[in-house]
Amino acid sequence: MSSKPVFLSACAQEPVSHTPIWIMRQAGRYLPEYRAVRKDVDFLTLTKSPDLAAEVTLQPIRRFGMDAAILFSDIMTPLGGMGIDVQFKPAPYIDEPIQSAKQVEELRALTPLEDVPYTIESVRLVRADLAADKALIGFAGAPFTLFCYAVTGKPDQNFPTARAFMYEEPATAKALLLKLGDAMGAYLSAQAEAGADALMIFESWGGLLSPDLYREYALPAVDRVLEAIRPRKVPLIFFANQGAAYLPVLRDLPVDVIAVDWRQPLSVAAELVGANKTMQGNLDPAALFGSPEELRLRAQAVLDDARGLPGHVFNLGHGIWPQTDPDAVARLVDFVHEQTAR
Amino acid sequence: MSSKPVFLSACAQEPVSHTPIWIMRQAGRYLPEYRAVRKDVDFLTLTKSPDLAAEVTLQPIRRFGMDAAILFSDIMTPLGGMGIDVQFKPAPYIDEPIQSAKQVEELRALTPLEDVPYTIESVRLVRADLAADKALIGFAGAPFTLFCYAVTGKPDQNFPTARAFMYEEPATAKALLLKLGDAMGAYLSAQAEAGADALMIFESWGGLLSPDLYREYALPAVDRVLEAIRPRKVPLIFFANQGAAYLPVLRDLPVDVIAVDWRQPLSVAAELVGANKTMQGNLDPAALFGSPEELRLRAQAVLDDARGLPGHVFNLGHGIWPQTDPDAVARLVDFVHEQTAR
Repeated sequence: MSSKPVFLSACAQEPVSHTPIWIMRQAGRYLPEYRAVRKDVDFLTLTKSPDLAAEVTLQPIRRFGMDAAILFSDIMTPLGGMGIDVQFKPAPYIDEPIQSAKQVEELRALTPLEDVPYTIESVRLVRADLAADKALIGFAGAPFTLFCYAVTGKPDQNFPTARAFMYEEPATAKALLLKLGDAMGAYLSAQAEAGADALMIFESWGGLLSPDLYREYALPAVDRVLEAIRPRKVPLIFFANQGAAYLPVLRDLPVDVIAVDWRQPLSVAAELVGANKTMQGNLDPAALFGSPEELRLRAQAVLDDARGLPGHVFNLGHGIWPQTDPDAVARLVDFVHEQTAR
Repeated sequence: MSSKPVFLSACAQEPVSHTPIWIMRQAGRYLPEYRAVRKDVDFLTLTKSPDLAAEVTLQPIRRFGMDAAILFSDIMTPLGGMGIDVQFKPAPYIDEPIQSAKQVEELRALTPLEDVPYTIESVRLVRADLAADKALIGFAGAPFTLFCYAVTGKPDQNFPTARAFMYEEPATAKALLLKLGDAMGAYLSAQAEAGADALMIFESWGGLLSPDLYREYALPAVDRVLEAIRPRKVPLIFFANQGAAYLPVLRDLPVDVIAVDWRQPLSVAAELVGANKTMQGNLDPAALFGSPEELRLRAQAVLDDARGLPGHVFNLGHGIWPQTDPDAVARLVDFVHEQTAR
C-alpha cells in the first residue's frame, strides 16, 4: 500500500482503504491541550507564531488520528497584508471598513512571503512534522465571505451593510471582490508551494446571496482564485456554507471537492453540483452531544447517504463547537474508520 | 368588482386585479411615525397596548397602501401565557430557559382570551379600522422556532443549546415542541375568531435543521398547529425561512401559501413544495438600498420569476431593515401595483 494520504485519494476519487475523516475547527477550544497553549498567548499571536500554530495544528491528529490536518489560522489573517487592519476583540474587528472606491483602489496586492511569512512558515513546519500518510490542508476565505467582513467591519448574522453596498455601489463592490480574489489566489498558491497538499476555500457567508447575486458578484472573484492556484495542481475543496440555494451555481466550478453544511444531504447536494465531484461532510455538529448510540446512528446515516458518491470525505457540516466533549470526537473518528475499512 | 381583499384572492389562486404586496415587518422602525409612537413606550408595552398596537399596524397601510396588514406583535408574546417569562432587554431574554422534562410538564396550555387578551383585542381593533379590501394577517412563531428561544433563552445565530438538546434529550424536546404546537394552535385560532383574515406561521429558524431532523422533530408540532386552526377556514401562510434544504419536507403541508426567503427563486421553491401552492416573496431586503432603477430591475425579476405560479403575493424575502428609506418602499409598492394591474 502506498503512503499517499487516503484523504488525497478520496479527493481524486481513487480507491481508498477507508473513508477519510477530519473535522472543521479540529484544532480549537474543545481540546484541553489547545486551551493550555492559549492560556499564555492570545488568538492573534497564536496565528502569527509558526511554532505554536504548527503545534495546535498537529494536536488533533495526535489525539484522534484524523486523516488530514488543517492549518491553524484565521480567514482574516491575510487582509492585513492588503492594508485592511484587522484586530481581534476577540471577534475580528476592522476600524475603517471599506466603504469607498478610493479605499478599494488603495488596497495592496498580497505578497504572502512578505505580508504573512508566519503563515507560510507554519505550513512548512506542519508538513515537516506530519506523517506521510496524512494530508495538510491550506485554506483561505472566499472573496465574498471576506467582502462581508471588510465592508461591515465585524461579524454579523446578516451583514446588512455589505449586502446593501452591493446594490448601492455595484462597480466598487465588484472591484473589491476581484481584488480579494487575486489576493486569496496568491495566498493559497504560496501555501501550496510551502507544502500544503490540498487547498480549501471557505465560503462561509455565501448563503446570504440569491443564486443570481452569487453568480453576478461572488463567482467571478472565485474564478480569480481558481485561476491563480490551478498551476499548483493540488486538490481544491470549496465549502459552500448554507449552499442549498446556490449550489447549482457551482455546477461548473473546477474544484475537486464540494464541502456541504449539515442542512443538505450530501446526495442531494451532489445532484445539484454534478455527480463528478467528491463530497465532504456533513454530520450536524450538534450530533456530538447525543449518546454514543445516537451519535453512531447519525454518523451511519451520513455514510449511508454518501454510499453512491464517487468520493467522500467525512466531516462535520460546520465547525466543531467549543463545548464538545473530545471523547465524542474520538468515538466518531474511530467509528468512521472502522465502519468503512475495506 | 367585489371588495374581497385581493390578497385573499391570491391566496385562493383566484383571478386578481393586481399582484398583492405587503412587507414583513412593515410596521416597524424604518417608519418615522412608528418611531414617534415608540418614543413614549417600550417594545413590550407597545405589544400589550391594543390601541397603540393597532395604530402601528395600520401606519404602513395608510402611508403605502399595501394589500394586507399584519398584526403588530412579537412571536415571543404568547410564551408568557404558558409560564415562560420573556423579557426584552431589548432582545428577548428568558431567565430560566427550558432544560428539563419537569419544566416541560409544568408548562401551561395557552388560553388566549385570558393569557394574551391584548393581542386578541388588537386584532379586533385593526379589523374594525381596516378597509374592506385589505386583509389582516394574524401570526405566530412555528413551534421549532419558539423552541430555539425557549431552550436557549436568548437570540443566537446558531442556537447550539437548543440543537444539542434535541440530541441529548430527544423525548423531552419532542414533548416541548408538541406543547408549543398546541399553544400556537390555540393562539392562532383565537386571532382568526377575533377577525384575522389569514394566519401566518413564522418558521424563522427552520433552516438550522437538516430535512431529516425537521421531519422528525419540527413537523409533528407544525401538524398540531394546523389541526387546531383548520376549522377556522382562513388561508394559512407558512414562512419557511432558510428553507432551500427543507422545503421538500413541506411538500404535503396543508397550507395555502409558502413564503420564501430571498435566497431561493420562487419558481425553484414552488417545484420543491408542489405547484399547487401560492408563493409569497421574495425580494432581497438589500435591494431597497439600490437606485430607483436598480430596485425596479430587481423587483421585476421577482415578478418575472413568479409569472408561471398559480398565485403570487409579493413581499420581501425577509423583514425590512430598520435603516431602509421609506421612499424606497413607496416606490416598490407602486411599481408592483402598476406593473401587475390587469
